[in-house]
Amino acid sequence: MEFEIIKKTPLYNALSEQGKRIYLPQGVFHWSGRAKKEAEIMGTLGSAFGFEEDFIEGGAPEWVPLYLEDIKNYTKFNVNEIVPYSKISGLEDLRKSWIKWLLKKSIYKIDSEQEKLNKLENFITTPVVTAGVTNGIFLCCSLLLNPGDFIISPNKRWGNYDNIVEKLIGAKIKSFDFFSDKKFNVNGMKNAIYEISKVQEKIIIILGFPNNPTGYIPNQEELEEIIDALKEAQKTISKPIIILVDDAYEPYVYSKEVINRSIFYELHELEEDIIPIKLDGITKELLLYGGRIGFITFGLKPHWVKNSQELTTLKAEIDNKLSGMLRTTISNANHFYQSLILKLFDDIGMDGVIEKREKVIHLLKERYEKINAEFRKIKNENISVDSNAGGFFIFVNLNNISANHFADHLLKKYKVGVIPIEKQHDNINGIRIAYCSIDVRKIPEFVSRIDQALRDF
Amino acid sequence: MEFEIIKKTPLYNALSEQGKRIYLPQGVFHWSGRAKKEAEIMGTLGSAFGFEEDFIEGGAPEWVPLYLEDIKNYTKFNVNEIVPYSKISGLEDLRKSWIKWLLKKSIYKIDSEQEKLNKLENFITTPVVTAGVTNGIFLCCSLLLNPGDFIISPNKRWGNYDNIVEKLIGAKIKSFDFFSDKKFNVNGMKNAIYEISKVQEKIIIILGFPNNPTGYIPNQEELEEIIDALKEAQKTISKPIIILVDDAYEPYVYSKEVINRSIFYELHELEEDIIPIKLDGITKELLLYGGRIGFITFGLKPHWVKNSQELTTLKAEIDNKLSGMLRTTISNANHFYQSLILKLFDDIGMDGVIEKREKVIHLLKERYEKINAEFRKIKNENISVDSNAGGFFIFVNLNNISANHFADHLLKKYKVGVIPIEKQHDNINGIRIAYCSIDVRKIPEFVSRIDQALRDF
Repeated sequence: MEFEIIKKTPLYNALSEQGKRIYLPQGVFHWSGRAKKEAEIMGTLGSAFGFEEDFIEGGAPEWVPLYLEDIKNYTKFNVNEIVPYSKISGLEDLRKSWIKWLLKKSIYKIDSEQEKLNKLENFITTPVVTAGVTNGIFLCCSLLLNPGDFIISPNKRWGNYDNIVEKLIGAKIKSFDFFSDKKFNVNGMKNAIYEISKVQEKIIIILGFPNNPTGYIPNQEELEEIIDALKEAQKTISKPIIILVDDAYEPYVYSKEVINRSIFYELHELEEDIIPIKLDGITKELLLYGGRIGFITFGLKPHWVKNSQELTTLKAEIDNKLSGMLRTTISNANHFYQSLILKLFDDIGMDGVIEKREKVIHLLKERYEKINAEFRKIKNENISVDSNAGGFFIFVNLNNISANHFADHLLKKYKVGVIPIEKQHDNINGIRIAYCSIDVRKIPEFVSRIDQALRDF
Repeated sequence: MEFEIIKKTPLYNALSEQGKRIYLPQGVFHWSGRAKKEAEIMGTLGSAFGFEEDFIEGGAPEWVPLYLEDIKNYTKFNVNEIVPYSKISGLEDLRKSWIKWLLKKSIYKIDSEQEKLNKLENFITTPVVTAGVTNGIFLCCSLLLNPGDFIISPNKRWGNYDNIVEKLIGAKIKSFDFFSDKKFNVNGMKNAIYEISKVQEKIIIILGFPNNPTGYIPNQEELEEIIDALKEAQKTISKPIIILVDDAYEPYVYSKEVINRSIFYELHELEEDIIPIKLDGITKELLLYGGRIGFITFGLKPHWVKNSQELTTLKAEIDNKLSGMLRTTISNANHFYQSLILKLFDDIGMDGVIEKREKVIHLLKERYEKINAEFRKIKNENISVDSNAGGFFIFVNLNNISANHFADHLLKKYKVGVIPIEKQHDNINGIRIAYCSIDVRKIPEFVSRIDQALRDF
């Protein structure tokens, strides 16, 4: 693979040394692919196969992967759905289904917005399957960041970003205050972009709503401000801006006042070289934390290619780079949970999945409303709850009280557990409350104890 | 974590910059751990939970992870066995089981070799669960190799080593000819060690039997030569030698003339700083390719620690580094296949698993014997089959014929598929035959067609 087309896009120069280096060599796959088509007898397949009757008592005269009989006791899937490797980039049917799922999540209307739907469908890569959302974030950060490079992120972010970027890769996070006047700090983001553009030829941002830990989601007006700021910055600096869109909590939106889909879609519509990469997965979206299945989908820009052939080649080139990353880090993602999602989509349909999930979202929404209502009752200048409209958490800022100290006191005296986050250099001091795992009936007592603890200070 | 003890061992200086940098911060885990013990109401758990009756019609008044009802249709496991995250380093019960499995695989006798068994059990880390054997190799290579560093490997090796080491990490493989006079090329390995010791303070080797692609396993005498060579080299260079033992094909030994366990055990017994790291997994061992569950187990040396407290601390430090690697790359391994192995071990016992697998090994052994017998019939100076005694493949060297050219001809004219490996700079030209997926009844015809194709040249 020559990577001819990707080299003409701003993506290529944004790649790290590793990202430039990596690819999936075709050797073994070329020959085993040819053998499948041309051979009468194949000696290429590196998994053990045999006739079931030759190793299972009462087995069929069927050519299947050799397996241990007892594994059949634990699942209703057949052997082919759980034993063999999936392809490196994932089961093909699942990848196609996930495109449909992405289109559905865009909430574009088939009748009135067909053009936007078509553009979306044509100008994204076929999602590759990763070992969960973390794995997707890790792979994309590795593709894009050299040691020492900067990625921009608001200060209130998932702690594992810091682990991945700084501890693992040795790159740096350019942080800015998440909020300004209770809204997303658009100027902070813009200034961070300008600052990094002085030292770096590419701008990499990681961002996603609902945000972890605050639960913040922009409303339409705020979204437009964010988009305008990105457009203005991109125009000013004339460098590509790549945005890793962390959509882990995508469907958990509880308020009608905020946008009800990922910012990926808005960013994808932009003609500028503001390039979104969508990172989502079944972890929270389909409530399968232990499933470890995520997806990476690149948003592409029509002006990068001259014709549909170049577009096809570009997609294949990106796919090859991602496959190279997958092959060298995990080989491929597990088969069972891929089969499970496919079956779910087949058996009850995507609409069925959404409908069933509504019960869960409803439950979480009740808690969201209750916990916000309870906190509103507390009149205490020492705390402020960050704007929130979705996700699994709220974040309560503490003034004049060390968050660690407070959490310790709260736990010891009032038997209430929260996660304190105290990062003075990053202007954060507060507690994260995971209401996703608090029964709604306990929330008043939960907040009341926090109120009492606050009064001890 | 201060990493006080590991810093006193030769392991620490062998770590890459990344390996030195990485760790798992305790923040969130510290607070959620405390909350579990001390709290009456917890707001720490980042997965959504609720009473089943609140979101499933006819559900129980039980506190469970919120899940989509229909996933229950596909497995007999309960929700807690497939929905939640496993711990970062794997399910604790599975990790403990895998220690027992390792002890069993050592084939030390409980009565006569109890001392060796005890030493083995005490001086290994608790295996951490990875997303498959590839993931284990990737994580260990990342822990140990900086870009530009050398790892030593025989020339006949799994092609993905090259992808991981060179394309991904940007390190280099110091290659040596696998065979010398049909035996493992001990001198080649020794010379490679001496050469690298001139430019590097640590020696890293990756090695494993049965080997992919040759199927070679040393006999007792050859094993001793390998061990003696390593001891001599280590003494001469006075630098630690770390050996990544790739045990992907561990149980597939078909000949009584060769050693019947991993070289990990022999290396572990050495008092010198010849440090084995065992990389194994369910992929081939339990015939679950799509399971993506592997294990990393460090062999430790008694002379590194003064007492059992230091030993415990050392294990915790290594565990923390590995957990940091896992957290930042995959978060944790999938839950279903971890549950599946645990259940298998519980329900039919480890001996039951081994017994059931015997049927599979028997089937493969028949093929191994047949394919070797058929090749022995061919009298042709242009080919030689590498010594082999196990695994999934044999490797047939070709003289005076390009392997790629031959494979193409074989496929086109005789409809037989094989994988050619042609690396002139590394002294390899031959074909890999995966007899693991050829029915024994087809093997005579398979080899006969190769024989005919050879005569065309």
